[in-house]
Amino acid sequence: MNIITENLNIDNLILLALKEDISSEDITTNSILKENILGKGSLIAKEDGILAGIKIFQRVFQLLDKNLEFKMNFKDGDKLKKGQIIGEIKGDLRIILSGERVALNYLQHMSGIATYTNDMVKLLEGTNTKLVDTRKTTPNMRIFEKYAVRIGGGYNHRYNLSDGVLIKDNHIAVAGSIKKAVEMAREYVSFVKKIEVEVENLKMVEEAIEAKADIIMLDNMDELTMKKAIKIIDGRVKTECSGNITKTNILKISKCGVDFISSGVITHSASILDISLKNFQRL
Amino acid sequence: MNIITENLNIDNLILLALKEDISSEDITTNSILKENILGKGSLIAKEDGILAGIKIFQRVFQLLDKNLEFKMNFKDGDKLKKGQIIGEIKGDLRIILSGERVALNYLQHMSGIATYTNDMVKLLEGTNTKLVDTRKTTPNMRIFEKYAVRIGGGYNHRYNLSDGVLIKDNHIAVAGSIKKAVEMAREYVSFVKKIEVEVENLKMVEEAIEAKADIIMLDNMDELTMKKAIKIIDGRVKTECSGNITKTNILKISKCGVDFISSGVITHSASILDISLKNFQRL
Amino acid sequence: MNIITENLNIDNLILLALKEDISSEDITTNSILKENILGKGSLIAKEDGILAGIKIFQRVFQLLDKNLEFKMNFKDGDKLKKGQIIGEIKGDLRIILSGERVALNYLQHMSGIATYTNDMVKLLEGTNTKLVDTRKTTPNMRIFEKYAVRIGGGYNHRYNLSDGVLIKDNHIAVAGSIKKAVEMAREYVSFVKKIEVEVENLKMVEEAIEAKADIIMLDNMDELTMKKAIKIIDGRVKTECSGNITKTNILKISKCGVDFISSGVITHSASILDISLKNFQRL
Amino acid sequence: MNIITENLNIDNLILLALKEDISSEDITTNSILKENILGKGSLIAKEDGILAGIKIFQRVFQLLDKNLEFKMNFKDGDKLKKGQIIGEIKGDLRIILSGERVALNYLQHMSGIATYTNDMVKLLEGTNTKLVDTRKTTPNMRIFEKYAVRIGGGYNHRYNLSDGVLIKDNHIAVAGSIKKAVEMAREYVSFVKKIEVEVENLKMVEEAIEAKADIIMLDNMDELTMKKAIKIIDGRVKTECSGNITKTNILKISKCGVDFISSGVITHSASILDISLKNFQRL
Amino acid sequence: MNIITENLNIDNLILLALKEDISSEDITTNSILKENILGKGSLIAKEDGILAGIKIFQRVFQLLDKNLEFKMNFKDGDKLKKGQIIGEIKGDLRIILSGERVALNYLQHMSGIATYTNDMVKLLEGTNTKLVDTRKTTPNMRIFEKYAVRIGGGYNHRYNLSDGVLIKDNHIAVAGSIKKAVEMAREYVSFVKKIEVEVENLKMVEEAIEAKADIIMLDNMDELTMKKAIKIIDGRVKTECSGNITKTNILKISKCGVDFISSGVITHSASILDISLKNFQRL
Amino acid sequence: MNIITENLNIDNLILLALKEDISSEDITTNSILKENILGKGSLIAKEDGILAGIKIFQRVFQLLDKNLEFKMNFKDGDKLKKGQIIGEIKGDLRIILSGERVALNYLQHMSGIATYTNDMVKLLEGTNTKLVDTRKTTPNMRIFEKYAVRIGGGYNHRYNLSDGVLIKDNHIAVAGSIKKAVEMAREYVSFVKKIEVEVENLKMVEEAIEAKADIIMLDNMDELTMKKAIKIIDGRVKTECSGNITKTNILKISKCGVDFISSGVITHSASILDISLKNFQRL
Repeated sequence: MNIITENLNIDNLILLALKEDISSEDITTNSILKENILGKGSLIAKEDGILAGIKIFQRVFQLLDKNLEFKMNFKDGDKLKKGQIIGEIKGDLRIILSGERVALNYLQHMSGIATYTNDMVKLLEGTNTKLVDTRKTTPNMRIFEKYAVRIGGGYNHRYNLSDGVLIKDNHIAVAGSIKKAVEMAREYVSFVKKIEVEVENLKMVEEAIEAKADIIMLDNMDELTMKKAIKIIDGRVKTECSGNITKTNILKISKCGVDFISSGVITHSASILDISLKNFQRL
Repeated sequence: MNIITENLNIDNLILLALKEDISSEDITTNSILKENILGKGSLIAKEDGILAGIKIFQRVFQLLDKNLEFKMNFKDGDKLKKGQIIGEIKGDLRIILSGERVALNYLQHMSGIATYTNDMVKLLEGTNTKLVDTRKTTPNMRIFEKYAVRIGGGYNHRYNLSDGVLIKDNHIAVAGSIKKAVEMAREYVSFVKKIEVEVENLKMVEEAIEAKADIIMLDNMDELTMKKAIKIIDGRVKTECSGNITKTNILKISKCGVDFISSGVITHSASILDISLKNFQRL
Repeated sequence: MNIITENLNIDNLILLALKEDISSEDITTNSILKENILGKGSLIAKEDGILAGIKIFQRVFQLLDKNLEFKMNFKDGDKLKKGQIIGEIKGDLRIILSGERVALNYLQHMSGIATYTNDMVKLLEGTNTKLVDTRKTTPNMRIFEKYAVRIGGGYNHRYNLSDGVLIKDNHIAVAGSIKKAVEMAREYVSFVKKIEVEVENLKMVEEAIEAKADIIMLDNMDELTMKKAIKIIDGRVKTECSGNITKTNILKISKCGVDFISSGVITHSASILDISLKNFQRL
Repeated sequence: MNIITENLNIDNLILLALKEDISSEDITTNSILKENILGKGSLIAKEDGILAGIKIFQRVFQLLDKNLEFKMNFKDGDKLKKGQIIGEIKGDLRIILSGERVALNYLQHMSGIATYTNDMVKLLEGTNTKLVDTRKTTPNMRIFEKYAVRIGGGYNHRYNLSDGVLIKDNHIAVAGSIKKAVEMAREYVSFVKKIEVEVENLKMVEEAIEAKADIIMLDNMDELTMKKAIKIIDGRVKTECSGNITKTNILKISKCGVDFISSGVITHSASILDISLKNFQRL
Repeated sequence: MNIITENLNIDNLILLALKEDISSEDITTNSILKENILGKGSLIAKEDGILAGIKIFQRVFQLLDKNLEFKMNFKDGDKLKKGQIIGEIKGDLRIILSGERVALNYLQHMSGIATYTNDMVKLLEGTNTKLVDTRKTTPNMRIFEKYAVRIGGGYNHRYNLSDGVLIKDNHIAVAGSIKKAVEMAREYVSFVKKIEVEVENLKMVEEAIEAKADIIMLDNMDELTMKKAIKIIDGRVKTECSGNITKTNILKISKCGVDFISSGVITHSASILDISLKNFQRL
Repeated sequence: MNIITENLNIDNLILLALKEDISSEDITTNSILKENILGKGSLIAKEDGILAGIKIFQRVFQLLDKNLEFKMNFKDGDKLKKGQIIGEIKGDLRIILSGERVALNYLQHMSGIATYTNDMVKLLEGTNTKLVDTRKTTPNMRIFEKYAVRIGGGYNHRYNLSDGVLIKDNHIAVAGSIKKAVEMAREYVSFVKKIEVEVENLKMVEEAIEAKADIIMLDNMDELTMKKAIKIIDGRVKTECSGNITKTNILKISKCGVDFISSGVITHSASILDISLKNFQRL
């Protein structure tokens, strides 16, 4: 989330979101605020959680007007308590009013994900298992959501289909065998990438090991099978567990000894964290 | 969601989401499926809910390849039971594998919103109150989310800042009074638009009535105040209630006699509806 | 026309217009002005009229080079007399020469519309009728043209098809009746929008009233019918008159008591206002 | 205006214009026409003039739906008489209703320019002078307007600043002399381009001839001076006359013997030609 | 290079290239070919080499007109002999003439890279070393150039900076040590990616091994040092050699036992393969 | 290559190239450089040649971060000796590391073309023949490549198909004769453009002269025929020679007396000039 990513990969998405909300002009604000009126407002946490996206919140306004000023008391990853003042925004009141909703939509969504992720991560404390995300993200929000996962203490799985190899049952079926599929991937993709194979039973685990897969994903296995699988693998390659992970079952699954647990819920179904912009004053 | 909206306002968003997931190519699929292999798969509901976005699901694939075929057993708004086969997709297996995730991300998100909305709407059955959405949508998802709200039985509030007037406390403060603010809006915006004013107490209600506002939003009022407000208004203008609406309090609020209840939760915090693409076969 | 609208909705159009005129480079200027030469020029009214678009004029240059300076003696809405110096531009002469034509094309076009609109509006002085524009604008010029109409003293009708409801004969035919059409619109569109119905005769006027339309457009009616229609409506809803409005007939039509007269001529057929950039000097 | 130009340089402008008019959806049509209803309508000339842009008219609809059908009785350049049926459009009534305005906005604007141009061109009949356009076009309409000029019988001057050389007083001042300016241009620009020089008096004419300019533009000269200039030039290079050309003075100017007369009015101030889409029927 | 990649990641680049060559229209062709004239032409190899990009060649034309037909005798990867007819194109002659140059520019460039790569690859025959490309590609040509490398028998290194980790001296300096740098990367990037470290001497080789780097790049080492390095590494991780690889030294370097040799020359300095479109006929 | 061209026609291409290399973030640099670290590096010539593109090199970084500083010892067109320090870059080390490759890819490519062009141009010293480029450029690199040709001492032919007329055999065949083809072009294209005709034998030369072509291109003629052709033309129009020009034959061809020799090799097959960014230091 440095200036490069903002310039190249984020600004265009934020601008699109701003145009979604302002297709010609903010007719209410422009009716009444005919010129630059200096004002300020406070960003306030309405519930406890983890802050994520505070730079994005600011960037939304800056894309409308470079002259807005921010004084932030918290940074991404900080714990927020209900009622705390996250920071202050100061500048042309028209910009603050017109940009507020989009800026909050990003901030609340990202903080919601970081908070939910963090809840899950805390359940894994003391284990050797890492929580990773999936490609089950909201369309055109991936860069924000994967970042929020990291802020919440999680880790990222592959960014997208061009970024990592994951051989699934359909690929195996077409290739003819796990061995053949891994060989085909090894021949085709850059050697800087690991080859991950999704397996459903112990026979496939053995085939994957033999095929020299770099990572084995244990898909929807029951606990006992998973334990056996991990015993077979015996640390030779990294293991990932996937499928219907919840706050309730995550610790038990971790205890099977898996290296990574991937969860779609953290990105696709986290509630927002309630944050609001309040206490506007003219200066 | 007809062909015009698809061509003008949706395809570009879907393409952006596809590029988010395929920044150069699907390296796994392209390793193994070297040419067109005809296949099919089934779209299956993994839990109960309301279907929304089935055309978008199809459009994702069609933007990759016009030749894919679909046979759908359900349409948007239909109730789904866990295990039901929503429909079938048939065509080049590479397209199905590479487009699956983005297509499901849209479908699950939209169906989640429709389902959540519908739960709320059912609580209002028998009342005269309508559930409406807000601008608290996920960035670059508004057109999909507002559509899903309608499919779930809700109604749409203004689409964006250019689309409707909503005079809030800051506008009133700058204008000097509700009366002055409404006049300024009446002078500035097109006469085809209604003027809505957000009020916080009974005094403001009276001022809004006097200022000939078309709609009065009762913001974060307690039940008693709201009832008084609605009595004062006495049907002369439409009323909207906003702020922390939940499944628990919605019916009670409705009973105050308000015309519209707006809810951010339905768009920003609904969990997805679990739907998956399964049973792939080569043909 | 504040900085938000410029950033989100105008800059991309101006840039497109600049690229239309400079597809690789200004070959004449680049042949001769090999480096930054400081210069200035004066913007001069070549005929009487209303100034509109002076910020757009400046924005064209600023998108090429942020360092240009402007000193303007007039602002949008001001009356110009032939020969008056509107203002001065100062900076890199290459920018001034290369941007001049596009900047003037916008300024002259917008000022032409404001001037023409103002001529029409003056004819309505002393009446209760307001002049409004239509969607008969030049493609990709709507945001500029609708702004110029306001500067000229006119008002805006709906911005576009997504912004307001106007039920016409074809909609009524498909719906079955005005009543049914209004109901369908009331059900479908956001409650923040008014429903306007276009009628052609007195029977339709009565149906529209009964259907609780918010605005009735009297389309191409003769004077007598229009008067009768307005009498029937009797102030219950707003009325609009449309169709072949000219400087000659506008006052007479207004006298029928209609609230709004809409005119396509002001946007699609106004001549430009002649303004030029002259008296270049090197500094 | 063949398929290449449409694909590469026109579709993006038409799509932009369509999005200008349909920022989310046509709310009126979508309220009432819930599904494909087959219909047709007639395109009718409401006044006499020259048709221009009939392919663009069709392209607007085709970009919304490829299945619309057209049967046209006239082609670009044809003379239209008031009341004539230009052609027929058939297909999904929703597409026809939603695309109508943008399609007509292009067609009326282009036909207006062709008609006005043709009026001017007819005044030059029997002379050796050709009417050419300028860069005084409406922003983002140049490709359409320059085409309409040709349809009206006029000719095109340079397309834009990258396309042709026109050395004006400011360039000459910086270069030091006409001779120097022409040399600099000759050295810098591709040899496939002619060098045109704008002159204001007879001394400059002689300098331009001596500098071996390919075209001399006589700028705002009185008739007598122009005649002298043309006599001096004596057919050695092409001549162009520019500045305040009207229907009244164009013939007289032509008689001075100038090769080209350039006119900004034909593109920036022509009224539209009134054309409408009528007689809709369901099929 | 399947239909997905074309739709999502290639068409926009080809369209940009077409607009680069046709900023308004092909004025020569449109002067003379006023309507569709059916014609055909042959694509002929003017020198020996490897064909790459034949689908891109066709796609250029198809983006201008879907109706063009192709009959190709060769496919990507095939050896071409001077004079051989690669295939035939048939359709609207205007499309063929206007698209010819851009289509050939792609085809010749890609085939040039494939041919050069293949020359290098053949020098490695019988060894265990693979030739890989770099990020030293022509801007906006990477997707085409990396594909051409594969067609020529080479392999791809990381696609871009988001796709793979390569820790260089500057990163090590900031981190403090190779060990620390690898740990930081391991913590930050997705676990599906390998960590590659660039080393310059034997001490760094040992540190990289100890830090558990997945790949070690031996940068600009002399032969003797490289051999020692590879002996130290002893197959524990993959090795890559980089820096001034030429046809002359590649085999000798390979003999040091390195797994991968990366070469910038194959993408940034290969000459085109001469291919032309000839023997046009009207049909 | 002034600020206008950068803003309008170059920045979008550079941004596209940057996104090609950074599709989400530079994962290596972002792993290790967590915040702004001030640093500098030197740009060094690794071989002799002509510098071209030094502004583009800087622009790449400036599009990532406006605060980078440059101190350049050389400018475009300067001769570089191996080992010379071209200049210095100073600023946030993350920006320098992440932008380095794209910046060098442009600079090396452009300098390679300028160097190769200059080699050819030097062979023509003392003759009256100018070296010109062609449309055989790398897709989406034309603006950079044509600029580099000028820096190397060459001249530009037409920029693209919209910019100049070149009548080839297929056009002549369709028109019926050279005379007819030239007339059609003269009627259709703007009078500011010259008409060039490609001829293959002496008969065509005579026809082209008679048709009053402005430029005659002698295509793939042998030396003797070319001499005869130039004698026939006798200075009445400009002549261009095209086809398989090499360093070996260029002088001999020039001696035939041709005005322009066009070469595709200089743009499509020049090797890069080796330049690197070295000696990074933290400040």
